[in-house]
Amino acid sequence: MSKRNVEILDTTLRDGAQAEGISFSVNDKFQVVETLSDLGVRYIEAGNPGSNPKDREFYNRFRSDPPAMAESQLAAFGSTRRKNSLAEEDANVRELLAAGTPVIVIFGKVWDLEVRDILRCSLKENQAMIRDTIAYCRSQGREVIFDAEHYFEACAANRDYALSCLTAACEGGASVVCLCDTNGATMPETIASLTREAVAALPDVRVGIHCHNDAGLAVAGSIAAVLAGASHVQGTLNGIGERCGNANLSTIIANLHIKYQISCIPEENLARLTPLSRLMADIANLTLPNGEPYVGLSAFTHKGGMHVDGVKKNPITFEHIDPAAVGNSRRFLLSEVSGRSAVLDIVRRVKPDIDRDAPEVGRVLQKMKEMEHLGYQYEGAEASLELLVCKELGIYAPFFSLEKLRIASEQPKSGANSAYTYIKILVDGVGEATAAEGEGPVNAMDRALQRAMEVFYPELTRVRLTDFKVRVINADATASKVRTLIESTDGRQIWNTVGVSTDILEASWQALVDSLEYKLMRRQLEWEE
Amino acid sequence: MSKRNVEILDTTLRDGAQAEGISFSVNDKFQVVETLSDLGVRYIEAGNPGSNPKDREFYNRFRSDPPAMAESQLAAFGSTRRKNSLAEEDANVRELLAAGTPVIVIFGKVWDLEVRDILRCSLKENQAMIRDTIAYCRSQGREVIFDAEHYFEACAANRDYALSCLTAACEGGASVVCLCDTNGATMPETIASLTREAVAALPDVRVGIHCHNDAGLAVAGSIAAVLAGASHVQGTLNGIGERCGNANLSTIIANLHIKYQISCIPEENLARLTPLSRLMADIANLTLPNGEPYVGLSAFTHKGGMHVDGVKKNPITFEHIDPAAVGNSRRFLLSEVSGRSAVLDIVRRVKPDIDRDAPEVGRVLQKMKEMEHLGYQYEGAEASLELLVCKELGIYAPFFSLEKLRIASEQPKSGANSAYTYIKILVDGVGEATAAEGEGPVNAMDRALQRAMEVFYPELTRVRLTDFKVRVINADATASKVRTLIESTDGRQIWNTVGVSTDILEASWQALVDSLEYKLMRRQLEWEE
Repeated sequence: MSKRNVEILDTTLRDGAQAEGISFSVNDKFQVVETLSDLGVRYIEAGNPGSNPKDREFYNRFRSDPPAMAESQLAAFGSTRRKNSLAEEDANVRELLAAGTPVIVIFGKVWDLEVRDILRCSLKENQAMIRDTIAYCRSQGREVIFDAEHYFEACAANRDYALSCLTAACEGGASVVCLCDTNGATMPETIASLTREAVAALPDVRVGIHCHNDAGLAVAGSIAAVLAGASHVQGTLNGIGERCGNANLSTIIANLHIKYQISCIPEENLARLTPLSRLMADIANLTLPNGEPYVGLSAFTHKGGMHVDGVKKNPITFEHIDPAAVGNSRRFLLSEVSGRSAVLDIVRRVKPDIDRDAPEVGRVLQKMKEMEHLGYQYEGAEASLELLVCKELGIYAPFFSLEKLRIASEQPKSGANSAYTYIKILVDGVGEATAAEGEGPVNAMDRALQRAMEVFYPELTRVRLTDFKVRVINADATASKVRTLIESTDGRQIWNTVGVSTDILEASWQALVDSLEYKLMRRQLEWEE
Repeated sequence: MSKRNVEILDTTLRDGAQAEGISFSVNDKFQVVETLSDLGVRYIEAGNPGSNPKDREFYNRFRSDPPAMAESQLAAFGSTRRKNSLAEEDANVRELLAAGTPVIVIFGKVWDLEVRDILRCSLKENQAMIRDTIAYCRSQGREVIFDAEHYFEACAANRDYALSCLTAACEGGASVVCLCDTNGATMPETIASLTREAVAALPDVRVGIHCHNDAGLAVAGSIAAVLAGASHVQGTLNGIGERCGNANLSTIIANLHIKYQISCIPEENLARLTPLSRLMADIANLTLPNGEPYVGLSAFTHKGGMHVDGVKKNPITFEHIDPAAVGNSRRFLLSEVSGRSAVLDIVRRVKPDIDRDAPEVGRVLQKMKEMEHLGYQYEGAEASLELLVCKELGIYAPFFSLEKLRIASEQPKSGANSAYTYIKILVDGVGEATAAEGEGPVNAMDRALQRAMEVFYPELTRVRLTDFKVRVINADATASKVRTLIESTDGRQIWNTVGVSTDILEASWQALVDSLEYKLMRRQLEWEE
């Protein structure tokens, strides 16, 4: 049997941005594009260029400085033209074309009830709106995907009309017509039968599927459509989306590749699914649920003693796939097992000639796992990881010792600087005591530490913090564990450090110390030119 | 068509307890039993009485003081007898019977590979182990459910043998044989066809299905089995379970009732699905994902302006069911986009008869925009928004005034409680000064404030924080502005509050104060029954 291909459209930047609590900056959006392009999805859908200034700025930057995208193409999203007008004179359509993307997604209505009650135009005019808009975009050299909103409700109401709108889209020159289960209400067997019908009726076009998870069946519905002949799947990498989310592409991609031998990204990228899905969650500032299929932290984690034994004897007893196939790894909650080659790269940054089988590599790996178990995360905090390596290799000697750090804050506050810090450090037996105020305790701590350290290490004067992130990693109300990530620069290099604690001040302190010590360590090891 | 019935077995206390981070006390277990019995599931499976002292204590208490269960029966879980022995002499089987439950779930192997390699007995002896154990439990007056572990892998390896083991269970007198997709690896269409076959082969017994979510398809697989003739579904109420979780029963129950008109709990209990699912999450000390189908906070939440308009005109445009059917409710996210008509809903919660064009509505909208400009976000913090409305309408009077709050923390820390807080508040001129330690300053503040407030408002003792989130909203290193979101509950309602400041402690303080004041305000306005 020849291997089928299914193309993926990720709509994190458009439909995903509708999710509660999601708000992407323009920089975030470019990071999303880069991540999806690294994964190799076929289309990356961004927002509606006519809808808000942030999306307009995104497309301006995209045009003036297009990011490299090996496998992927950017798609702008917008509506059909207004009724009783010309597509070429429609302001939204013009803005859509002006976005300058190679692909355009046009959404339109196919449900007779909506045409009558919302558009308030004739059923025929709606078909013309679909056909014209697509034809005009095609005449401007763009590929067009047609999103048929509420397709399944539309079929229940008037199946012939819904299908005739898809035909209009094909006549306009769409390369894909996508059946949208906008409300997430349709059961997989219904999706399958209506998809089969559309595929048979429209032999010259690719049929797509766009599911929502309101009934917990978005992945099942998408796969049912593919098995019924759909060759284009829309969703978001971690299922981000409004209400209960869009179809989760990380799950769909893994299922199609592994369970059905249907390709949707370059085969060699499948092993990057877990790190890239986690990176996407990070950009969206979301915590990926531990139980996320394939890519979650617990997806291949074994707790029950019997299960652990079973997996150790023969993994197929409790694991449906090799975790490495999707870039994830097996965890045992009681005793960790090693996978050494992952850290070898990092160790070699510090000690380039180290042997693969050197005991230090195993020690670093062990330590890293311990730290990750505590909640540390070294993706996005490699400076802290390199320091950890230096510590395990015995290269690191502390650059200072802390004698006392006192942080105080009070409410109601008086003035901008509501917190103050007293610090005393020792360097080679010489003490330095100082203090600082700040807008909040972390700021005060940062200022005090830097002031004290600069006395001994003048090169630190150029170091400043450029970003600070806080994430709650296990929710136990205000005694939750938090992870802080700090980005620092000396004007030439940028580096990132991490701290973890139930105490946000302690977590911040760890990341601050790592930041300064990393700078000093780089210099000591002559990493710096 | 006559209405079908499907019976539900919830295994939160057995399979669910295998999940990472889950640990039920004996009291928790009784609360779980009560909650599931309120929902009206047919069987509540508890742990293996032979496996640990906590489960033994649970069964002891169950026997001496059985909880009232209207529709539900408790089931103890255990293995078939050991090879080459008698069931009546098997210590585990005796312990299982001694648990005193009306129902017993016996699990056994049906995969020839496992019989050979793990049990190391003949295929025939394994059949006898299944048959004998069940027959003996039946002879002791118990109903018996047989769980066929790895049933789908077993069929792939040796379908005749797998089926013959089910036949042995029927010969022993099992009333249900349950096909377990232990690894969560089986696709719904395969589950459907093998279930159909089992149903046809075993006309005198009910066939059950037990799915895991490793491929994100546990709900789909369970429903596929029901459509293929299964009449017994196993899972856990919120999908709690090891790795990626068990089949999510809240989703399955809602889908079967609403999408297929198949009953699995008393019809009148469906409207309790949301509060009972949330209560279960609470007992398990888990945060229910907002996007949880049917029962999540965001399941019927609308954000995009167009969607909000659509839903208000006609809910079927963006809602697949009436949220009240499952005890959930519709929410509109308030943001700058959403304008006057969305705000009106919130204002009317406080003052139901207010006119759409009243100046107060405009004032609230104006204030909201100012606050959002400062970084406040009222999506997911509606309690703070309702308080803001009360303030703008002149209804709110402060419940306390803060005289002094001092927060102190130090590094290196000694002991778990690294922070301490001194607080003095005034209520009607009466002062209360107290202090608290905590794992970090926010925890210490939370404890101190609650302790001081409870002196005046005893109803606050039931309030506790269930989630705490921190987001950096404008990156200016450690002087960044942060937004904290706090989720609180009194065991019946859940509410969310927000705070914003460059000082994380001040932002947390605002959200903490709003949380307690909202509870008091609700009471004052008689929102609470």
